[in-house]
Amino acid sequence: MILNNFALQARALLDSLAKPQGSLGRIEEVAVVLARTQGTLSPITKKRRLVLFAADHGVVASGVSAWPSAITEMMIAAIIKGGAASSVLAAETQTDLRLVDVGSLGDAPVSPPQFYRDARVRRSSRDLSIEPALTQDEFNHCWEIGAEEARAASVQGFCVLATGEMGIGNTTPAACLTALLTGSDVSLCVGRGAGADNVVLQRKHEIVQKAVAQNKSQLASNPLKSIAAVSGLEIAAMAGFLAEAAKLNCTVVLDGFVATAAALIAEHLAPGTKHALLSGHQSAEPGHKLALASLELQPVLSFDMRLGEGTGALVVMPLLDQAAAILTRMARLEDIGFARGV
Amino acid sequence: MILNNFALQARALLDSLAKPQGSLGRIEEVAVVLARTQGTLSPITKKRRLVLFAADHGVVASGVSAWPSAITEMMIAAIIKGGAASSVLAAETQTDLRLVDVGSLGDAPVSPPQFYRDARVRRSSRDLSIEPALTQDEFNHCWEIGAEEARAASVQGFCVLATGEMGIGNTTPAACLTALLTGSDVSLCVGRGAGADNVVLQRKHEIVQKAVAQNKSQLASNPLKSIAAVSGLEIAAMAGFLAEAAKLNCTVVLDGFVATAAALIAEHLAPGTKHALLSGHQSAEPGHKLALASLELQPVLSFDMRLGEGTGALVVMPLLDQAAAILTRMARLEDIGFARGV
Repeated sequence: MILNNFALQARALLDSLAKPQGSLGRIEEVAVVLARTQGTLSPITKKRRLVLFAADHGVVASGVSAWPSAITEMMIAAIIKGGAASSVLAAETQTDLRLVDVGSLGDAPVSPPQFYRDARVRRSSRDLSIEPALTQDEFNHCWEIGAEEARAASVQGFCVLATGEMGIGNTTPAACLTALLTGSDVSLCVGRGAGADNVVLQRKHEIVQKAVAQNKSQLASNPLKSIAAVSGLEIAAMAGFLAEAAKLNCTVVLDGFVATAAALIAEHLAPGTKHALLSGHQSAEPGHKLALASLELQPVLSFDMRLGEGTGALVVMPLLDQAAAILTRMARLEDIGFARGV
Repeated sequence: MILNNFALQARALLDSLAKPQGSLGRIEEVAVVLARTQGTLSPITKKRRLVLFAADHGVVASGVSAWPSAITEMMIAAIIKGGAASSVLAAETQTDLRLVDVGSLGDAPVSPPQFYRDARVRRSSRDLSIEPALTQDEFNHCWEIGAEEARAASVQGFCVLATGEMGIGNTTPAACLTALLTGSDVSLCVGRGAGADNVVLQRKHEIVQKAVAQNKSQLASNPLKSIAAVSGLEIAAMAGFLAEAAKLNCTVVLDGFVATAAALIAEHLAPGTKHALLSGHQSAEPGHKLALASLELQPVLSFDMRLGEGTGALVVMPLLDQAAAILTRMARLEDIGFARGV
């Protein structure tokens, strides 16, 4: 676990409370992360906001996904109507939800709500199995949109920020980025995403293998070009969001595999970003574990979730509330009349 | 997982929602348990109540605990004042808290609050390393107090009930009960409780070994006598609570090792109790896994918690809210315009 002075003080405070030391297990670890990321022994967990970034992926045309790109538009509509998993969980966990479209293929929604922003940099990334998915300019544009969202949330008083995504096909760029930025073998980074069968999985593996091989050599000399080539519009936006949010003394909660791939980018281009991060859950995607290890992050939950849409960040929000409550509201051993040696 | 018709219907409903099938992982499993235990596809998770049963244990005199019995009284006072871990987590998770003393050694609190009940059957159990911890009458008396609490909660409209305990030394009877009722080897059932060192652990192991050996043979002929001999006052009360709550179409959430030992008793004396249960967390105590397996229960969380006081039931309450929300408020695939084969 990453430690700073507030982390050490939080640990000492937890050890002084009216319970056996360490007996609240993972809840105590979350409390330490809250103290560390917010730089205080009185961390707060509300107001909080999840910003979802949506986009489509050219590589879907090469057959890497069990679902067609049309689903991205349908899910954007479902989120706008409040019927998506993320809508339901955001409401249930008192988390403000924003949806920022940086590159879906579909038509813009008619009379969209306040929480939706059409900020499309282009309609879908290019097919990374044929050409670079994004130019450096496109990547930077998305990054800046993400950074803007982090600044706006901070100005509006949100202390816990989370990010997630909607984009059919995006576990393919996430696998590329994980292999590229952690140096892991491609076969360890490729999984079934939202339900790929064996044929799709094999094709996905070949595409990721080739894309990583083509872009690995220039990572040191031109990281931006190399990363943009195997990235996605919403992934670039999440990376900018995470890098900026990390500078704002927020606790920044990651969703699963794709959001963590964005965190790898953010840490690569803006070192230190990882110190603000809290990983919500361990996804069922195999590459997620490698990405988290590279960032020195321990996921709070391991729930076999693989939905995306920020759901893996939303489910842990009440556990953050609990951890903050333990740190700030429990009696100490000395308050209840206990002295060592009773 | 235990299934009934509502479980199967809930599974089908979850599969029709606007997400890849099974992609919410453990949250979906919790939703199925809620539907199954409440017998409806629209389970509710509030109002909910945690009933804590407190008592002391004669076996502490034989040196099985890192903490003295005096801590039980201090923790009762801390819960009454609202500074205990369970107080903080109950408030944070909107769970009504009741504290029922069935056998602590201390003085009754001065001007106790409404949520406290002094129902002491005796002051501490006897030392199970020397003589039977409880008579059958004492056991039955405690059981009935627990059952009363379950009925009262149901009458007051609580739909989710949870139980936990406060009682220094109670992982020793819990280890005895787990070995006795699951047939597991004693060495697999004995752990460090709230911080036993190697010397204490060794003594605890010897005491549990002997007590189980003495009481095993009469389990078939006189289960009540055998169970009472290695039990505790708060454990007997929890068992009665669980058996009665199971009859009331509630979802009944278990805390950790000691509460699960009580569930083993309830299932032994009132078969079928397990069908109403939901295990909150996998405790750090080694015997807990064996007890859960015997009851065919999958814990929701594995958080390395070992505090008791119902904390392992409280932490999962918001996850129950989320699971119920997913089951009842999400759009279906057909609602968002998706037909298989798009």
